Amino acid sequence: MSATTPPGAPARFSINQETVKQLSLPDLAKACGELGVAGVGLWRAPVQEYGVEATARLVRDAGLTVTSLCRGGFLTAVDPAERSRALDDNRAAIDEAAGIGTDTLVMVSGGLPAGDRDLFGARERVADALAELAPYAAERGVRLAIEPLHPMFASDRCVVSTLGQALDLAERFPADRVGVVVDTYHVWWDDRAPAQIARAGETGRIAAFQVADWCTPLPAGVLLGRGQLGNGSIDFRAWRDLVAEAGYTGWTEVEIFNEELWARDGREALAETVERFRAHVL
Amino acid sequence: MSATTPPGAPARFSINQETVKQLSLPDLAKACGELGVAGVGLWRAPVQEYGVEATARLVRDAGLTVTSLCRGGFLTAVDPAERSRALDDNRAAIDEAAGIGTDTLVMVSGGLPAGDRDLFGARERVADALAELAPYAAERGVRLAIEPLHPMFASDRCVVSTLGQALDLAERFPADRVGVVVDTYHVWWDDRAPAQIARAGETGRIAAFQVADWCTPLPAGVLLGRGQLGNGSIDFRAWRDLVAEAGYTGWTEVEIFNEELWARDGREALAETVERFRAHVL
Repeated sequence: MSATTPPGAPARFSINQETVKQLSLPDLAKACGELGVAGVGLWRAPVQEYGVEATARLVRDAGLTVTSLCRGGFLTAVDPAERSRALDDNRAAIDEAAGIGTDTLVMVSGGLPAGDRDLFGARERVADALAELAPYAAERGVRLAIEPLHPMFASDRCVVSTLGQALDLAERFPADRVGVVVDTYHVWWDDRAPAQIARAGETGRIAAFQVADWCTPLPAGVLLGRGQLGNGSIDFRAWRDLVAEAGYTGWTEVEIFNEELWARDGREALAETVERFRAHVL
Repeated sequence: MSATTPPGAPARFSINQETVKQLSLPDLAKACGELGVAGVGLWRAPVQEYGVEATARLVRDAGLTVTSLCRGGFLTAVDPAERSRALDDNRAAIDEAAGIGTDTLVMVSGGLPAGDRDLFGARERVADALAELAPYAAERGVRLAIEPLHPMFASDRCVVSTLGQALDLAERFPADRVGVVVDTYHVWWDDRAPAQIARAGETGRIAAFQVADWCTPLPAGVLLGRGQLGNGSIDFRAWRDLVAEAGYTGWTEVEIFNEELWARDGREALAETVERFRAHVL
């Protein structure tokens, strides 16, 4: 290793593409190479734009592992036509995941349909949809990874709000078909999450581990509140230890949606993220 | 009852003062009289400004029941001087509650101190502080009512995020000294809340029932997101039934923090709130 070679990002560090979405896919692959980042989590829209086959070639040539594809889901529709379109779209997402060579499709369940106030019913519809999708995914080597989102997203984005709820859904299916995502941003407040991580570990259901920090005040709409590691309230090492103790040996994906990070040079933002990971997660 | 007499608000309907904070205390009392509202939840700052004794006289003369005083709490300080100040302030809040004739002091636990990432430790400090305050409150006929706030407030406002956590704290004390607040806005997403309401009912710990609707998108800072009844995603009748089945026979307090509501004529906003209560909670 020459003196100018970067030290390389930590093992099993993965950068979720949305964290540095100012980078095109080729620029992202290049920056990962320069910074020694070996894993990337990708998003459907940029993959579709670049092309599934071209993306597969790009990451293969760059020696990158695609740790997840974000995202499928949005399965809470009551209207049959809308539900059918959602299922079709999820089958397409599964095909894309297989096409770019990842075994993990992150699933965000979807919120309440307009005027609907029945959270419990919506969660059941998610279960019904997973039952239709899981075999299709399994045939293609893709596992559906249910991501509980913070309860502040329960009405408009994801009716699955806790790891406990996600596991209640996942456990209706074989563990190699449906798992869960542990994302510090969504679960950090939950005193039951440590026990649920252990529960997920026992059946090998931790499909992905994602990190972002919890920062306040939250911005309007709250979606872009995910903060750079170290800027907020989350004790990452405690969560890292919990997933490790649960037997998880996979990647840790940094997924941040943050206007400030997006306004900066993408490679610099990625380099900072690697450093923050060293300082706060390792 | 003459033809011009308003029909009167529903029995056990209480208006939390902050919902119509544009009204002075005398104007609030007058509007309550005109609209047949028999209960009010008050806040410390306007009570202090008007005077505790003057407030007591005003509500007594108006025939109003003070259903709660908001709020004590903010008990998570590590610094001894800061902690001591918080305890003093809470003793003052207890005195004020007793002075205005309510038996319920709503307690918002407080967030993480700056730079602190230990939610579990903060919750223990809340328990320690409650142990100091509960006897003082009991001597004055005041019950401390722990309010779990939505998990989106965990870092900056309230480390107690679920009814389960609130009950874990409350049950360290006799039920007549420490209870919990069930607020639909904070618990509506929680699939465990129905069982926790039953648990709270079994030991007579439901000290207050508050309602506000969940509306999105959330505003920046999220504090003023509480929406008018019927504008959002909450099935109020389901929650009303749960607290009733748990044996709660007390007031239902409408507590909304909302810029739009505050910008309107206070009496009109109160009248609308009564109507919305009839339409969505009764």
